[in-house]
Amino acid sequence: MNRVEVIGVEGIGEVVPGDDLAGLIAAAAELRDGDVVVVTQKIVSKAEDKLVPIDATDPVAHKELVEAEAVRVLRRRGDLVITQTRHGFICANAGVDLSNVAEGFAALLPDDADRSARRIRDGLRDRAGVEVAVIVSDTFGRVWRRGVTDVAIGCAGIGAILDLRGTTDSLGRELQVTEVAVVDEIAGAADLVMGKASGVPVAVVRGVDASWFRRGEVHDELVRPADEDLFR
Amino acid sequence: MNRVEVIGVEGIGEVVPGDDLAGLIAAAAELRDGDVVVVTQKIVSKAEDKLVPIDATDPVAHKELVEAEAVRVLRRRGDLVITQTRHGFICANAGVDLSNVAEGFAALLPDDADRSARRIRDGLRDRAGVEVAVIVSDTFGRVWRRGVTDVAIGCAGIGAILDLRGTTDSLGRELQVTEVAVVDEIAGAADLVMGKASGVPVAVVRGVDASWFRRGEVHDELVRPADEDLFR
Repeated sequence: MNRVEVIGVEGIGEVVPGDDLAGLIAAAAELRDGDVVVVTQKIVSKAEDKLVPIDATDPVAHKELVEAEAVRVLRRRGDLVITQTRHGFICANAGVDLSNVAEGFAALLPDDADRSARRIRDGLRDRAGVEVAVIVSDTFGRVWRRGVTDVAIGCAGIGAILDLRGTTDSLGRELQVTEVAVVDEIAGAADLVMGKASGVPVAVVRGVDASWFRRGEVHDELVRPADEDLFR
Repeated sequence: MNRVEVIGVEGIGEVVPGDDLAGLIAAAAELRDGDVVVVTQKIVSKAEDKLVPIDATDPVAHKELVEAEAVRVLRRRGDLVITQTRHGFICANAGVDLSNVAEGFAALLPDDADRSARRIRDGLRDRAGVEVAVIVSDTFGRVWRRGVTDVAIGCAGIGAILDLRGTTDSLGRELQVTEVAVVDEIAGAADLVMGKASGVPVAVVRGVDASWFRRGEVHDELVRPADEDLFR
């Protein structure tokens, strides 16, 4: 667990509805067993045809689309709308995204990004003969910190949370901080080679601790239920 | 910008007040110009003697220390206290930490982690003759997502925020998401090789985009001021 590599995968090209993402990734990347393949939400949404036509010059059209996608609006300020999506994510604009999408279209979130991750993982096993974990990433803001970071909205083959309860620190004392959102740390690491403007929609993260690989889900493990939320 | 390496630095040993962190890191790591050196808050606090005696078996003592360190308590639930620190951070327990600290002591946050990062950066220039960026990291929870991730509480030689305003996406459309908290993504990436239990308090992140290197500060750039905060 001493070295992790983050490798941007180039040559994926423009993804269109119906594309086989696992096939595209297998052709563009040299994968190994134990890799974590991070795939941006944008190309998952495109492949799954979560594109809707929108007049991007019409702010009302965008607002209506955001409200249709949200199950709840938590806050508004100017153009910013903080929403809860049907998946339970709290994010800006219900995940409706206009960047890196063809003119006249917006991309919505995948219906179930954990399922999307499982499909890509299964596809990579078939296409490339590798046993990898898959994370679907998206870009979220934070309440108390400026700027955005990439986080996981779906995962497969890796636990969303690394549970260290019962383990001890280097001095033999039981750890206070016990649940680490490793899939979010991996998604953020992947963004270091993706950039927002570079058109690199996939990264391979190689060398993460093999003990983290297990059945995992963002929805069940990582999304905080309303009854745990102190700020909703 | 196609490959980033994250390398855990072993052999730092137990840090005590007065230690020269730059000297310890320079001796343990093979640094290169352009590396980002991520240093956990814990060893910064130890070197800067931000240790206070506490009877860890006495929950009242811990609670009193947290309240003394906080300038404001936002929420409480059971043992969890969400606080604002004098630095402007919103985090659990005002950053008071008992893990990886000798029995009978708690570690407080550095007085000014940006300054700590600058000192380590200057020290590494002196000791190792390298021009690197430095991030001081700590482990914070999130409002709407379970689990913790490592984020930056101080930085030097790198912008906390990468501002993409005015740049266009791969299809030529102006980017919606324009400010990326790259120091948080790097801090999270570093945690992938540190672990909470492994006693690896420093990581080197090699290969990040050279255009990110500039004068930077977490406090001024990344901590969201109260008047921007929709949820305080």
